[in-house]
Amino acid sequence: MQQPTIVLISPQLGENIGAAARAMANFGLSHLRIVTPRDGWPNSAARAVAAHGQYIIESAQIYDDIPSAIADYQLIYATTARRRDMQKSTLTAREFASQCGDNHNVKTAILFGRESSGLSNEEVSFAHKIITIPVADCCPSINLSQAVGIIAYEYFQQQIFTHFSTESEEINTNIASIRDINLLLAHLEEKLDNANFWKATEKKPRMWRNIRNIFLRNLLSKQEVQTLHGIINALSQ
Amino acid sequence: MQQPTIVLISPQLGENIGAAARAMANFGLSHLRIVTPRDGWPNSAARAVAAHGQYIIESAQIYDDIPSAIADYQLIYATTARRRDMQKSTLTAREFASQCGDNHNVKTAILFGRESSGLSNEEVSFAHKIITIPVADCCPSINLSQAVGIIAYEYFQQQIFTHFSTESEEINTNIASIRDINLLLAHLEEKLDNANFWKATEKKPRMWRNIRNIFLRNLLSKQEVQTLHGIINALSQ
Repeated sequence: MQQPTIVLISPQLGENIGAAARAMANFGLSHLRIVTPRDGWPNSAARAVAAHGQYIIESAQIYDDIPSAIADYQLIYATTARRRDMQKSTLTAREFASQCGDNHNVKTAILFGRESSGLSNEEVSFAHKIITIPVADCCPSINLSQAVGIIAYEYFQQQIFTHFSTESEEINTNIASIRDINLLLAHLEEKLDNANFWKATEKKPRMWRNIRNIFLRNLLSKQEVQTLHGIINALSQ
Repeated sequence: MQQPTIVLISPQLGENIGAAARAMANFGLSHLRIVTPRDGWPNSAARAVAAHGQYIIESAQIYDDIPSAIADYQLIYATTARRRDMQKSTLTAREFASQCGDNHNVKTAILFGRESSGLSNEEVSFAHKIITIPVADCCPSINLSQAVGIIAYEYFQQQIFTHFSTESEEINTNIASIRDINLLLAHLEEKLDNANFWKATEKKPRMWRNIRNIFLRNLLSKQEVQTLHGIINALSQ
């Protein structure tokens, strides 16, 4: 199947980036994207600990923001430690792995937050689904590279059990890309702005995040995205 | 059950000892023994990265050799990356975890080798059984703390599934009822009718089914249904 891409959001320590790359290599993942690494890029500390994951560090792609980092993907997962008060389906790492088996040919990315505070609610809202790693109540904070390692481990175990063999590498072209979704959301936002929907402008960011969640929570087909464009136009004509 | 003790054999880097302790704490393990740590003990680098695993570092017990470190245990596992030419049963990390469920009240220890070369055959020979973590052929060398983390993770997942799997039957009152959804869909349909959205009326049933699917495919919260009513009103005002 299409292997998932690991996307690190504003990682702080090069050592963790390198250790994440090493763990990815252990478990057959090779695509790494990094959004605004704190200490810039390239990072010698990341190189120093990557071991056989060196090639992942060398080919990592760097982005200024999440939307551009995930624009060409179709299915986005966000990893969180805490439960979020969001209407998104939440999977354990193992449940995620078993879904990977079902989602052949869907371009998938997994977001991991910064060491100090994880992903913000705003950042989580870019994802369709949430992955949590079940941990002891006393000690929920997992090191970034350990979290990447466990997700990669679960992915790889699932791959072993469902033999690699003859699956096609073709992407399911029926599913809308994040770029398509963002164009749809921009269309809706523009029309809502024109209709003076937000009343109190300070409430807009939160309201808008909730609205985005509604449309991101499941995978829309390209056809459905077109239909929703049509609905927005028809209603606002 | 009796939680297994982690035994690190001649670990070289304090950072790895600390990271191992942190991962142990994540997954409910608290007993750490160390045989001949290269840089002596206590180790400030271990403390610095242990986070909430600090108490594990403080209470770690130090030994001069493997026999004294495991003398009071009943069942010993050794972790290895390579296959060994030994007549011992070899389990994956997951198989190990499921054995933990069977071995109630057996005092268990797991040996992990040094970063550079793992366990020697001599050291492996102290164990009853071998645990391997399945990895990609290209990149078998797992960081010591990652290896501890994955074994601890598997142990903890097994514990959760055996002891905490009484799912609540409570109804989530936050989720919109089908009645709520149908009112929302009726609202949308009325507005689309008024906007002459359907063009060819014979196409309406099929188009409408597709639209309904978009909103039925996942569970909307009551709040989200209200938000969607608001959007429809704002756009069609």
